[in-house]
Amino acid sequence: MAQTPLYAAVMTLPTPFLAVDLPVLQTNIERVATWAAGRGVALRPHVKTHKSLQLAALQLAAGATGITVATVGEAEVFAAGGFDDILIAYPLWVDAVQRERLAGLASRVRLTVGADSAEGLAGLVGLDVAVLIEVDSGHHRSGIAPERAGELAALGSELGLDVAGVFTFPGHSYAAAEGPARAAADEDAALLRAAESFRAQGIEPRTLSGGSTPSLAFSGGEANEYRPGVYVFGDAQQWELSTCTPEQIALTVHARVVSHAGGRAVLDSGSKILGADRAPYASGFGRLLDHPDARIVMLSEHHAVVELAELPALGSVVRVVPNHVCNAVNLVEELVVFDASGEQRERWPVSARGRNN
Amino acid sequence: MAQTPLYAAVMTLPTPFLAVDLPVLQTNIERVATWAAGRGVALRPHVKTHKSLQLAALQLAAGATGITVATVGEAEVFAAGGFDDILIAYPLWVDAVQRERLAGLASRVRLTVGADSAEGLAGLVGLDVAVLIEVDSGHHRSGIAPERAGELAALGSELGLDVAGVFTFPGHSYAAAEGPARAAADEDAALLRAAESFRAQGIEPRTLSGGSTPSLAFSGGEANEYRPGVYVFGDAQQWELSTCTPEQIALTVHARVVSHAGGRAVLDSGSKILGADRAPYASGFGRLLDHPDARIVMLSEHHAVVELAELPALGSVVRVVPNHVCNAVNLVEELVVFDASGEQRERWPVSARGRNN
Repeated sequence: MAQTPLYAAVMTLPTPFLAVDLPVLQTNIERVATWAAGRGVALRPHVKTHKSLQLAALQLAAGATGITVATVGEAEVFAAGGFDDILIAYPLWVDAVQRERLAGLASRVRLTVGADSAEGLAGLVGLDVAVLIEVDSGHHRSGIAPERAGELAALGSELGLDVAGVFTFPGHSYAAAEGPARAAADEDAALLRAAESFRAQGIEPRTLSGGSTPSLAFSGGEANEYRPGVYVFGDAQQWELSTCTPEQIALTVHARVVSHAGGRAVLDSGSKILGADRAPYASGFGRLLDHPDARIVMLSEHHAVVELAELPALGSVVRVVPNHVCNAVNLVEELVVFDASGEQRERWPVSARGRNN
Repeated sequence: MAQTPLYAAVMTLPTPFLAVDLPVLQTNIERVATWAAGRGVALRPHVKTHKSLQLAALQLAAGATGITVATVGEAEVFAAGGFDDILIAYPLWVDAVQRERLAGLASRVRLTVGADSAEGLAGLVGLDVAVLIEVDSGHHRSGIAPERAGELAALGSELGLDVAGVFTFPGHSYAAAEGPARAAADEDAALLRAAESFRAQGIEPRTLSGGSTPSLAFSGGEANEYRPGVYVFGDAQQWELSTCTPEQIALTVHARVVSHAGGRAVLDSGSKILGADRAPYASGFGRLLDHPDARIVMLSEHHAVVELAELPALGSVVRVVPNHVCNAVNLVEELVVFDASGEQRERWPVSARGRNN
């Protein structure tokens, strides 16, 4: 159980809001940066988690080689913020409008984008971008079968594209028990097969990019680049998967107890600030950092109904850990950042909030 | 199945985005306004669904007596937009900061707020607001037992407050089969008991406020005010509860097919535009308006994986119906509004987006 006391400054801010514990955040950033440096691999964090220029700058200062984003719009925000090496880890569909935006980006930053089909590759012809072929390592979302990556690479080369390698997201790491370890093994196997299929076409892949926060520690080392996102903050999903401890959770929703109806605590943090994510393995709609026994048993837009042994007083503030921190951050305009003394230090805008396209 | 063709203008807008079908929206607004007028009851729509000044103005033009919001921040946005009769249907906890904000609002608009505890009432003393006691009609979220509403009303009167009546949210209407009808009956019974408990204290309730979109048609008539929200747009939850038809759905996410990985359609509309809501009765993470057989079997932040008989072409645009429209709208800055000709007519800002406190 985390021991950090509630911050005095909290009592003057309207609830709910998102609070970042800066010392815990910095420890998280450094821990994973040290891990990557020790392995001699590139760390290219996924900034969709925080969408914050300030936070991404801390990641680069700790040694990240560049950043990963999910959308053209996110890339535009970070490019405007001075970030000059950006991977859009997504199988983009490039029509005339998107082509113009990508050309604008490529003229200012080193840009890499994803593709998982011949049609996707064709849309990239003539753009000054590097391409990573997306392969499916077992999550079964987007991505081609690893053994077919070489075919696409060869096609891309014929089209005059710079096919730099492959990327995969082992998202099936988000599963209880052996999920993270199994997904890491699948990722290694997929990257190995994909690299072999490249070489069978006479193409040497420069980049083998993988990584999710849960699978990171289990990775066997086929990747030479990792793209974790959630590790900076942690969340209730990671807590319940045992891929972070409560002490490593750097972001909480500060919420107020507004009702004791039915002998339960009703908080003002609903799905419009926590997000509505609930994975099959989740024990509720979020956790309370200072009440490990508590469970959010019901969630609506502005109510979280909590069952716990000892009811916090009406009007008191509690720290709620969202299930999926990426979606919680995307609901607010800014993060309230607290330093080690518990003083509110600054506010970081969520600069790429809502940049879905 | 809805027959409206995809709009030509769509092809020039980056996906995903939220599109409003204005003729369908206007029909929805008029249908419920006519229902309320026929019953001789007040309609006070919950604007948390759309958070749009333009849309709320259409509701008032059709006869709504005022608006309902969930937070002080939403009230501030709509007050600034010229709306002068606002109910905050929430058991507010009023500290010094919130007191100042409420006083500012009360000086400009006719303001009514909720309370479900003695402590909540005490926080309202000295403010120029009317108060509705929240009662629990079976949803078991916030709200006092209906038979105890009179006690709180009497306490409020002693404190010098204008206790105008009660409100309840029969949210257990969001359940399959008999859910909507049962919740409507529970609402009627709760409002009747609450009114009796007021009268036992010698207080005549002026307002008996209820209503959710699913329960509306089943209401027996104890309420004299209704606060539905979702009816303006409809969504996949209403569709699957049979409380709206596909033809009544006025808001869709226009999404692009970016991958055919694994023989499924992968769309660029993930939880960051659809929301992650998935009620127990939902058949997936949203529906496709023009493909009733399709199911979104997997959702991540920027991917919706769809199983359906006939795959739409790579790069084509489909219309996705979010499960819970209120959370989808809260993820975007604006709604793209199309008229009957399919021409893009205007863009409506989601003015109260993110106003959680």
